[in-house]
Amino acid sequence: MFSTLAEETIRLALAEDIGHGDITSALIVPESLDQRAVIRAKEDFILAGMPFVRNVFSIIDPGIKVNTFFGEGTEVTKGSDIAEVAGNARGLLVGERTALNILQRVSGIATLTSAYKKLVSDLAVKIVDTRKTSPGMRYMEKYGVRAGGGYNHRFGLYDGVLIKDNHIKIAGGVRTAMGLAKQAHHLLKIEIEVSNFDNLREALDAGADVIMLDNMSVNDMRRAVEMAKGRALLEASGNINIDNVREIALTGVNLISVGALTHSARAVDISMKIE
Amino acid sequence: MFSTLAEETIRLALAEDIGHGDITSALIVPESLDQRAVIRAKEDFILAGMPFVRNVFSIIDPGIKVNTFFGEGTEVTKGSDIAEVAGNARGLLVGERTALNILQRVSGIATLTSAYKKLVSDLAVKIVDTRKTSPGMRYMEKYGVRAGGGYNHRFGLYDGVLIKDNHIKIAGGVRTAMGLAKQAHHLLKIEIEVSNFDNLREALDAGADVIMLDNMSVNDMRRAVEMAKGRALLEASGNINIDNVREIALTGVNLISVGALTHSARAVDISMKIE
Amino acid sequence: MFSTLAEETIRLALAEDIGHGDITSALIVPESLDQRAVIRAKEDFILAGMPFVRNVFSIIDPGIKVNTFFGEGTEVTKGSDIAEVAGNARGLLVGERTALNILQRVSGIATLTSAYKKLVSDLAVKIVDTRKTSPGMRYMEKYGVRAGGGYNHRFGLYDGVLIKDNHIKIAGGVRTAMGLAKQAHHLLKIEIEVSNFDNLREALDAGADVIMLDNMSVNDMRRAVEMAKGRALLEASGNINIDNVREIALTGVNLISVGALTHSARAVDISMKIE
Amino acid sequence: MFSTLAEETIRLALAEDIGHGDITSALIVPESLDQRAVIRAKEDFILAGMPFVRNVFSIIDPGIKVNTFFGEGTEVTKGSDIAEVAGNARGLLVGERTALNILQRVSGIATLTSAYKKLVSDLAVKIVDTRKTSPGMRYMEKYGVRAGGGYNHRFGLYDGVLIKDNHIKIAGGVRTAMGLAKQAHHLLKIEIEVSNFDNLREALDAGADVIMLDNMSVNDMRRAVEMAKGRALLEASGNINIDNVREIALTGVNLISVGALTHSARAVDISMKIE
Amino acid sequence: MFSTLAEETIRLALAEDIGHGDITSALIVPESLDQRAVIRAKEDFILAGMPFVRNVFSIIDPGIKVNTFFGEGTEVTKGSDIAEVAGNARGLLVGERTALNILQRVSGIATLTSAYKKLVSDLAVKIVDTRKTSPGMRYMEKYGVRAGGGYNHRFGLYDGVLIKDNHIKIAGGVRTAMGLAKQAHHLLKIEIEVSNFDNLREALDAGADVIMLDNMSVNDMRRAVEMAKGRALLEASGNINIDNVREIALTGVNLISVGALTHSARAVDISMKIE
Amino acid sequence: MFSTLAEETIRLALAEDIGHGDITSALIVPESLDQRAVIRAKEDFILAGMPFVRNVFSIIDPGIKVNTFFGEGTEVTKGSDIAEVAGNARGLLVGERTALNILQRVSGIATLTSAYKKLVSDLAVKIVDTRKTSPGMRYMEKYGVRAGGGYNHRFGLYDGVLIKDNHIKIAGGVRTAMGLAKQAHHLLKIEIEVSNFDNLREALDAGADVIMLDNMSVNDMRRAVEMAKGRALLEASGNINIDNVREIALTGVNLISVGALTHSARAVDISMKIE
Repeated sequence: MFSTLAEETIRLALAEDIGHGDITSALIVPESLDQRAVIRAKEDFILAGMPFVRNVFSIIDPGIKVNTFFGEGTEVTKGSDIAEVAGNARGLLVGERTALNILQRVSGIATLTSAYKKLVSDLAVKIVDTRKTSPGMRYMEKYGVRAGGGYNHRFGLYDGVLIKDNHIKIAGGVRTAMGLAKQAHHLLKIEIEVSNFDNLREALDAGADVIMLDNMSVNDMRRAVEMAKGRALLEASGNINIDNVREIALTGVNLISVGALTHSARAVDISMKIE
Repeated sequence: MFSTLAEETIRLALAEDIGHGDITSALIVPESLDQRAVIRAKEDFILAGMPFVRNVFSIIDPGIKVNTFFGEGTEVTKGSDIAEVAGNARGLLVGERTALNILQRVSGIATLTSAYKKLVSDLAVKIVDTRKTSPGMRYMEKYGVRAGGGYNHRFGLYDGVLIKDNHIKIAGGVRTAMGLAKQAHHLLKIEIEVSNFDNLREALDAGADVIMLDNMSVNDMRRAVEMAKGRALLEASGNINIDNVREIALTGVNLISVGALTHSARAVDISMKIE
Repeated sequence: MFSTLAEETIRLALAEDIGHGDITSALIVPESLDQRAVIRAKEDFILAGMPFVRNVFSIIDPGIKVNTFFGEGTEVTKGSDIAEVAGNARGLLVGERTALNILQRVSGIATLTSAYKKLVSDLAVKIVDTRKTSPGMRYMEKYGVRAGGGYNHRFGLYDGVLIKDNHIKIAGGVRTAMGLAKQAHHLLKIEIEVSNFDNLREALDAGADVIMLDNMSVNDMRRAVEMAKGRALLEASGNINIDNVREIALTGVNLISVGALTHSARAVDISMKIE
Repeated sequence: MFSTLAEETIRLALAEDIGHGDITSALIVPESLDQRAVIRAKEDFILAGMPFVRNVFSIIDPGIKVNTFFGEGTEVTKGSDIAEVAGNARGLLVGERTALNILQRVSGIATLTSAYKKLVSDLAVKIVDTRKTSPGMRYMEKYGVRAGGGYNHRFGLYDGVLIKDNHIKIAGGVRTAMGLAKQAHHLLKIEIEVSNFDNLREALDAGADVIMLDNMSVNDMRRAVEMAKGRALLEASGNINIDNVREIALTGVNLISVGALTHSARAVDISMKIE
Repeated sequence: MFSTLAEETIRLALAEDIGHGDITSALIVPESLDQRAVIRAKEDFILAGMPFVRNVFSIIDPGIKVNTFFGEGTEVTKGSDIAEVAGNARGLLVGERTALNILQRVSGIATLTSAYKKLVSDLAVKIVDTRKTSPGMRYMEKYGVRAGGGYNHRFGLYDGVLIKDNHIKIAGGVRTAMGLAKQAHHLLKIEIEVSNFDNLREALDAGADVIMLDNMSVNDMRRAVEMAKGRALLEASGNINIDNVREIALTGVNLISVGALTHSARAVDISMKIE
Repeated sequence: MFSTLAEETIRLALAEDIGHGDITSALIVPESLDQRAVIRAKEDFILAGMPFVRNVFSIIDPGIKVNTFFGEGTEVTKGSDIAEVAGNARGLLVGERTALNILQRVSGIATLTSAYKKLVSDLAVKIVDTRKTSPGMRYMEKYGVRAGGGYNHRFGLYDGVLIKDNHIKIAGGVRTAMGLAKQAHHLLKIEIEVSNFDNLREALDAGADVIMLDNMSVNDMRRAVEMAKGRALLEASGNINIDNVREIALTGVNLISVGALTHSARAVDISMKIE
């Protein structure tokens, strides 16, 4: 997995944690001491992010070896040893916090995504993420969503046309906005956000590939599905939570986007201890 | 507020969102159109992070003006206009998501910190954060903690000596570890983590400035306070939550560190709409 | 136009030209002398790239003013003054070569694109570019294509699914490859490269959005158009030149991609002289 | 060959092509699949740039091995296998376009330089390049010139004193300009541009090491050679092309600089196919 | 020793020395020639900085091996071989000057520090450095101080509270300043600068951990030690030199800070010769 | 003066000093307080480096104004106000140390250079610097040499051919080395290092432009001047100090290079105080 994006963030995270050095370890830990540490689950969760943990330690010291005991996207239970990390002791300690911060967050996202996914796993609907990610962490967080069984929405402003309310207002209407958007390069579909049936009809008529139903009630979504008749994919968006996701899925929408997957997932509890 | 650290993260966040460009706006929004947008609270929370929002827009276009209506650390209520942002429309749209992602997270942290703080505001105890921050976001997240009435623990491995269980194990005991740590530069205090009374006693005798009580029961913390007799500051750490924070505070510890402030705060709901 | 991508390349270009300084000007040109220079066309061409010229001089010295006399994408004739650049003389001289190198190349691309475009302007076909760009110059070169009346293909490996012969070989066939590709995020269409009719048929049946006809003869392209019956967009690719582009366009393909637009455009002749 | 300059451009080129990832390969190519690909000449040309191709793949994945079958600067014929590249399949595909874009351009420059060189190979004259290079590619493009049998002019504004018309105008004359330029550090020669015989005479009298004859006719160049009598090197510059280069060389000038070597060389045709 | 700080400076130093290449070696030294060079002391000094020399050569070429014959902080005598460096000859020559510039400076600092240290080695006082370091070299220079037997003061503005005269003036007095400073995070001590006895008394009463005696006479320092009675550490600062350091140490101050250790140490003489 | 090189070092220096912030000022100095500070000479010296001081403060806060009272290269006397710096107080304090570290070093270099220069000011000889500069500071330090009346030698390995003993050894002799070096680009002269008369004669015969006399005695230098008869510039190098520089100059050499100018200049004493 070659990603300069993840690596850049990892280097930034290491820099902000290490500064001019790990002064405690420099005082207490012999420079050439080798140790073995274990990364351990302190609760049940879906594991995701170990490739980034490898990146952390290989940036610090290519001599540190990381040996993983579970696959990405699998469930680990409280008390399980997830991986062992062996090599220079100062290197282990200097990478510990950054490695765990990433692993706890990315696994937390996978775990939350999986919870949503399980509630609708018998349906054709896809749980998708948003751009509401932690600044600098988008690449890793969207990876966590996939590991948890979700799907990614566009990565940024550059790889998908999504006409939102602000655009429609500026364009002066759905039709004009759709017309302008068709000039995008030929490998991109066009999605447009609507919040009422007039706009929905216009969007369908203008040939939108995907239509985002913004903050619609469950009843309105059901009616939107009937109106669309499969002419466009429909994405439910806004105020979706673990309690209403199944009801929304049952309306027949194709996609349900959940900002909370990335902006409000709880970090899972993981420790790293020298054995 | 001059901080290359925050700016570097903001540039990274903009780069990951913008890539080769905001293709939707390039198609729909006239290049030299000016607009005015409003940043609005969609729920009640403690506001924090507007200086970073200014940074976002000034990096994109120094011509965009941000006018803030509330001070940092103040409470805003659902429906309030927090700020207006005026200038080039493409610039507003290109910065919207990054600005909101930062503001929602930093305000979320301030709001959560404030909730803890209120529960113990009549006591001398300080609520402090940890290094369990979002990778790349430490500077901004620790700012959010202060805005919410909390205090910062050390910023990284470089600005505080904190001897943890892994260090004690390697050193071969509390006494040796403390002795080695005294070589740190003369402006740094020394904190050590203990999980039993033997270690606590050794730490006190060795002249620790601060002692972290790791995952101790409330009863044990109370006894630790008695043992310390003010010879060292005591920090409660591990499994602290909104339900037990006051009980812990009443033991008489000086500091309570809460990882959840930064690793599991929920993003608050904020929108930005072109008026 | 906010683009960190263009700016990064411009800074790199300035660094490679300037090194530790413009030693000739440092010796001969007084430090605080102001001058006015004129950028002039030495042949007829389509102008493109002046926004990047502005970037060059504003990076060197925000006090240098650039005043442009023609719009992007318009034709300028030999001898025309394109723009004037006024300010610190050392600044003008230090930016001259980098500014002209960019302007000559981007205008050269616009001019070549325009030549192709004119030959097929009465037809519905689009002339599109490729990823065969100068390393580091993709953003600016694709801008030149648009200025010349062409269209962009995907910007990189990240904003479009394009299944090429190497992928089909690894997947074991068109059908399998198409099936796997459908997992891409829902705003991306899928393009696949074919070089024979069996593969074309499979691609159509598998629901490809766009099909690239690789190095097909004009006759075969005509037959492909008949087979496709509009079920997918068809892109002619390989060995297209100014002599055969109209013949190819007349086959009815929707897109014609031309690598030469960016990899082999001749720089147009432009000078900058202090008046 | 240690060059941070080439590496910086290669990283920029990879970044602009890869963005958040090669989405097609991520969908279709198994993560740990190994493959072998062949880089093949699709026409006859002078090969140059394979060291940079190695850099491309070693940045992506140090495990990818590049095995080259021809030396730099040698002629390869249509259909020849230039090199094989073996290793992780996703890595091969992710580097393919960047590697080829560099190799096609640098070889194109070597090929064009070689064509000029052959026309004057029996004469003492040197074919030299200019600073009219692709932004960011100067180091690699000047390497291509050398591989094709040409010579480099200065690399930038920092490693050679070259007094041009703009400088002479500001200084108020050739003599003054030459006098000021003599303050340059003692390892640098001084070149000055002249376009008439008065200036030529002044430049010779002032002790110029090299004199650039700007856009002179062949007759005037011949006369300039007679006037100089070897007191300075003479460089022909401006409007030189493959048709007049020999006639110009026969005037006896010492150097002929050709901007087209770098700003308008056609990319040669090279493919990379998984075998 | 993992330090992105040292590495960043080393890369900057290599870039400023190498630019577009070592043109002399490129002309004279065969590309694949291997050689062995010896780094040799040309005078007696305390060695420090070899880890950074390793960094220099490993950045240039991981194939270059550095074999050191003396430990850091040990005394080497004129004529001693300090290390051998073996590998690609161009690599050795390209790194020579940067490696020596670092080694000569860092060893020079260690040697000067050691000279101060020896004069007071029978006393409890610590010789400490300041922030008066060469821009970009702080990490390496403070390393040199430690290697010479000195101690580090804070590394920067971020890892120690030091209230100086400018702060006191703004705060309106020692007491107010001390009160405000107590809000710093709980692992930081507080140091304050005083230049008279009134301020010293206020600082002691306000609970300063360390007090800097700014430019006090030896008599005044002696009296300050009596006043402090061990309630705070005392740091002598200003106009300290090799001639008065022992006299100052005998006053009983705890720390003596010497700016000259880093801002005015003479580089020691070291050569690197190919054998 | 546009220099990305100086700016990069200044940013690095600010980063290493500031880290996550100036914690003392953040506690004590009101955020929006404006102040005026004076930069004052604490001894007599030659001033150099104020343009870099401007850079420091403009990077921190463009609102800070620097007003200089002396020209670069002029002598300032103890007690003189060199400049005033006015603006945000936190900004002044955050830049103080970095600004002074640069100014003290660059002025120290100018002062030392001037001392050498004065001893030989009636002679035609030039005092030149070397590459023995502080890592990262070459651009600024060579500026200091010029400000003090000295001249620069080459800036790095890239802008001058200098054949040293290691090169001669690898080439197998002066003649071969000189022959190879002539391939350098036509704007570069060739300098070669010799340490005996045989090599000197070979170098002269081979047409060296400049010959470095390495560690020769004064008598030998005198004889070398006679042998050279003006056919090449002669540079005295090695063991030159303030005591022997005039005697060496009187031998008739053209250049005297002094490493100590940059590697061992003492920082001059300068303060910055809020008024």
